[in-house]
Amino acid sequence: MLRISYDELSGALRRAIEKTGMPPERADRCARLFADTTLDGVTTHGIARFPRFMRMIGNGSIDVHATPERVEAFGAMERWDGRRGPGNLNAYACMEAAIDLARAHGIGCVALANTNHWMRGGTYGWQAADAGTIGICWTNTMPNLPPWGASDPRVGNNPIVLAVPRPPGHIVLDMAVSQFSMGALESYRKRGEPLPVAGGFDASGELTRDAAAIEATRRLLPIGFWKGSGLALMLDLLAASLSRGNATHAIVADPERETGLSQVFIAFDLAVAGGPEAVTRLVEDVLRHMQQPTAPGTSVRYPGERTLQTRRRNTLDGIPVPPDLWRAVQAL
Amino acid sequence: MLRISYDELSGALRRAIEKTGMPPERADRCARLFADTTLDGVTTHGIARFPRFMRMIGNGSIDVHATPERVEAFGAMERWDGRRGPGNLNAYACMEAAIDLARAHGIGCVALANTNHWMRGGTYGWQAADAGTIGICWTNTMPNLPPWGASDPRVGNNPIVLAVPRPPGHIVLDMAVSQFSMGALESYRKRGEPLPVAGGFDASGELTRDAAAIEATRRLLPIGFWKGSGLALMLDLLAASLSRGNATHAIVADPERETGLSQVFIAFDLAVAGGPEAVTRLVEDVLRHMQQPTAPGTSVRYPGERTLQTRRRNTLDGIPVPPDLWRAVQAL
Repeated sequence: MLRISYDELSGALRRAIEKTGMPPERADRCARLFADTTLDGVTTHGIARFPRFMRMIGNGSIDVHATPERVEAFGAMERWDGRRGPGNLNAYACMEAAIDLARAHGIGCVALANTNHWMRGGTYGWQAADAGTIGICWTNTMPNLPPWGASDPRVGNNPIVLAVPRPPGHIVLDMAVSQFSMGALESYRKRGEPLPVAGGFDASGELTRDAAAIEATRRLLPIGFWKGSGLALMLDLLAASLSRGNATHAIVADPERETGLSQVFIAFDLAVAGGPEAVTRLVEDVLRHMQQPTAPGTSVRYPGERTLQTRRRNTLDGIPVPPDLWRAVQAL
Repeated sequence: MLRISYDELSGALRRAIEKTGMPPERADRCARLFADTTLDGVTTHGIARFPRFMRMIGNGSIDVHATPERVEAFGAMERWDGRRGPGNLNAYACMEAAIDLARAHGIGCVALANTNHWMRGGTYGWQAADAGTIGICWTNTMPNLPPWGASDPRVGNNPIVLAVPRPPGHIVLDMAVSQFSMGALESYRKRGEPLPVAGGFDASGELTRDAAAIEATRRLLPIGFWKGSGLALMLDLLAASLSRGNATHAIVADPERETGLSQVFIAFDLAVAGGPEAVTRLVEDVLRHMQQPTAPGTSVRYPGERTLQTRRRNTLDGIPVPPDLWRAVQAL
């Protein structure tokens, strides 16, 4: 594993993106969003995802010249059109707009249609928390989850993100409603490890811990069986209706051409919660109770805790990147 | 099993509530919320829960004279104080206020502190959908779920509700983030049936399908293992911070004295989504794709489908009530 500095990584990504004709300022932001994700240890949605991102620019799924556009405003709520531009730039712009709305109205919401994969959803949770707001966002996806009672993928695993700011370390949950995200499956497969619990169905319809078998069937197990299946449906209905965009069934079930997604971004101003100090006190209280010592050898982590540890380590030691992937990205 | 008409049931409940000194109009609404829940087949959170509701008025946990009060307004967002009044009346009033805010701002949100158990959470999803809005709401609870890595209950199973209106039948998901709600465990225990999948831990720390064993340890299994544990924490942090109310750890872990809860109610105006017809078309499209015929003997239900069937049947045939429970309620 190579260890690459953040500047070296984001520079290589920026140069590759600029070759596609994306304006320099946007190429820089886009590259940094990929680099931040890799720095945080979510390689699958960072540099490892970057070659596919470039192929999707090549095959016309992503339009590097498209910028997101506000279509309609309803006070604290807006509808935006992503115009099939880069998914991470679209999502970043819409969370920014939701934060601005929250400052004016207490709560703000942007529903985004016609966008592309947002890469790491947690990015927009960290963004909201860095801005000192509470954030919620979710996306729909191509069909990859059999609803409870069906054997074939008809709903998406629709990741949802919730974030609460706390200066020493934000609390950020980023989870697909499948037991494992596609990125997590890929990561277990590449490490040659079995999943810790069943993650989906194999070709014969049996529950399995074999990540590759689940990637092949695209029959992921919803969290909580029927519950995750219902949650996936609701997140899809809300994203598609509020954005007037596509629902999952209208999205091409091909990871190289998965486009036209619908997303929702919500922010809450901390004034509602009594200001940053009050929220920090509450979070400290809750974490202290949740993390009190339990049996030896076990510990309770909060969502985002490991991300922050990884970020610190990779900032000091360099970001681990497989040599062949690094060569491939430099050649793009 | 007796079959009781809606009017007979709500009348008996109303008379019992009026004896506590609750003003007639509020007693009538409160009784109807219990009766509606029972009519919809959620007996555990309807008439079966009613004797405990009355005991909690008796032990001072619920103040029948308290009405919820708007404490602070931030445009599209408001904070309310439930003043430890009846939980279902408080929740109903706050969803109503969120709906009004949504009509004015596209989205509306009310965070409610110092309230009591809202009984069936789905009630406020049906309420939002009946008003022609999209609704989201959630509550925290007393500690009943071990966070991932701990062996004792430190987070709540914090039910969340999402609802999308559709005139022929709203889509309403009402789920605790434990694999089974406390009400569902009670219901399996009373029927003497094992849970269909593991639902929590027994006294020796093993996963079990025995509802009574889980009720005894109060160690419920989160949906999706670590994922539901993270979601429970986030829902608690958001509810407690936005309402400036209690987080789960500050709530007494005794079902007879569980009070001072925090809740969040969000509504979206359908104008955002292009109006009721556009939403109905979208929902029909999504359901058609999700419910296309699959293997024989299997079917895919949408959240709320069974509720609606039960409501229709019980409206025609009467609401099933165990005879001893009916006698107990009539004697209150």
